[in-house]
Amino acid sequence: MNISLEETLLDAIRTIPDYPKPGIKFRDITTLLGNARAFRRAVDELVHPYAGTKIDKIAGIEARGFILGGAIAHQLSAGFIPIRKKGKLPHETVRVAYSLEYGIDEMEMHRDAVAPGEKVMLVDDLIATGGTAEGATKLLRQMGADIVAACFVIDLPELGGRSKLETLDVPVRTLISYDGH
Amino acid sequence: MNISLEETLLDAIRTIPDYPKPGIKFRDITTLLGNARAFRRAVDELVHPYAGTKIDKIAGIEARGFILGGAIAHQLSAGFIPIRKKGKLPHETVRVAYSLEYGIDEMEMHRDAVAPGEKVMLVDDLIATGGTAEGATKLLRQMGADIVAACFVIDLPELGGRSKLETLDVPVRTLISYDGH
Repeated sequence: MNISLEETLLDAIRTIPDYPKPGIKFRDITTLLGNARAFRRAVDELVHPYAGTKIDKIAGIEARGFILGGAIAHQLSAGFIPIRKKGKLPHETVRVAYSLEYGIDEMEMHRDAVAPGEKVMLVDDLIATGGTAEGATKLLRQMGADIVAACFVIDLPELGGRSKLETLDVPVRTLISYDGH
Repeated sequence: MNISLEETLLDAIRTIPDYPKPGIKFRDITTLLGNARAFRRAVDELVHPYAGTKIDKIAGIEARGFILGGAIAHQLSAGFIPIRKKGKLPHETVRVAYSLEYGIDEMEMHRDAVAPGEKVMLVDDLIATGGTAEGATKLLRQMGADIVAACFVIDLPELGGRSKLETLDVPVRTLISYDGH
C-alpha cells in the first residue's frame, strides 16, 4: 500500500467549478487540511529537503499560508513571520502593492520581523500568477532577508507564477500541479 | 539555564499601549511567533497534555489561530479545520453570529469539515471575552463535534472568556495570563 504523493494530495483536494466566478475551477485545499494523513504528508514533503539546512524564519502569506507555514515553522524549529493584508498588524510595518487578477491590493509585514541576512522560506498553499509571492519577496528583501526557498502545495504553471519567482532568483518547491486553471 | 515557560513567553510578547484604541494594552504575539524558541515552546506546551489522546481535528480561528493550529495539527497528526470570517470559504457552510466589543460579526465553517462524534481541539492565540471561541464552539457542536479542549497561549481572565467556555463544558488550557486588559 504505497500510495504516491500525487495521488494522496490530488485525492484530498476538492475542485469547485465556477468559483469564485464562471469558468474558474477553484482548488479547495480545506479538504486536504482536514485529512490528517494528507495534511501531514504535504507538510512533511515540503519540509524534507530542508532538514539540516539553517532556516531562521518561515514567512506565511495570509490566510491559508498561515496554516501550512505554522506547521513548517514548528517542524523546522524556525520562527514565523505573518505577511498580512494591510491594516491588520499592530506595529510599524513595511507595505507593498501587488497585482490581483483585477486591480491592486497591499500587503504588510512588521518592519522588525526579519533581520538582515536571516534565511527565510516563503510559504503559501498555491502559486498562480505569483502576484502575492512576488509582493512578499519584495517586502522580505527590503528588510534584508535571504530568501532560500518558496514552497507551495499546488502549482498552476500556466499562470506563470513559478517562472516569475525563478526570474527573481527565488528557488521554488511545489508538490502537485494542475494544467489549465 | 532552566528558564521558566512563563518567562520565555512573557519576554517574547510585545505589549503595544493604546492599540487599537486609547487605554487598551494590545498583546502582540507576532514577536513570540518570530522567536523560534518561544514559538516552539508555546506549541509544545499546548500540545503535551494531549500526547496519546485521540484528537481527530484541530479547529483554528482566523487568522492567528491558523498559525498555532496548523503547527498543533501537524504535531498531533490531526486534520485542520479553518473557522473563517464570513464569505471566505468556497463550499457549503454553517454560519454563526458572535459578539465583538462593539457589535456583531459572523463566522463560518464548512458544513462537511467535521463528522458527528469527531474529537476536536479549538485553538486561538488569546482568549478575552470568549465571543469568538463561543461562536466556534456552537459551529462545531452544530455539526456534532466532541470538543475535547480549547487551547490559547494568552488568557485575559478578567474579561471572562475562560469562565464562559467552562460554563459550556469546554475544558480550557492557557499558558500565561495578564491581569487587566
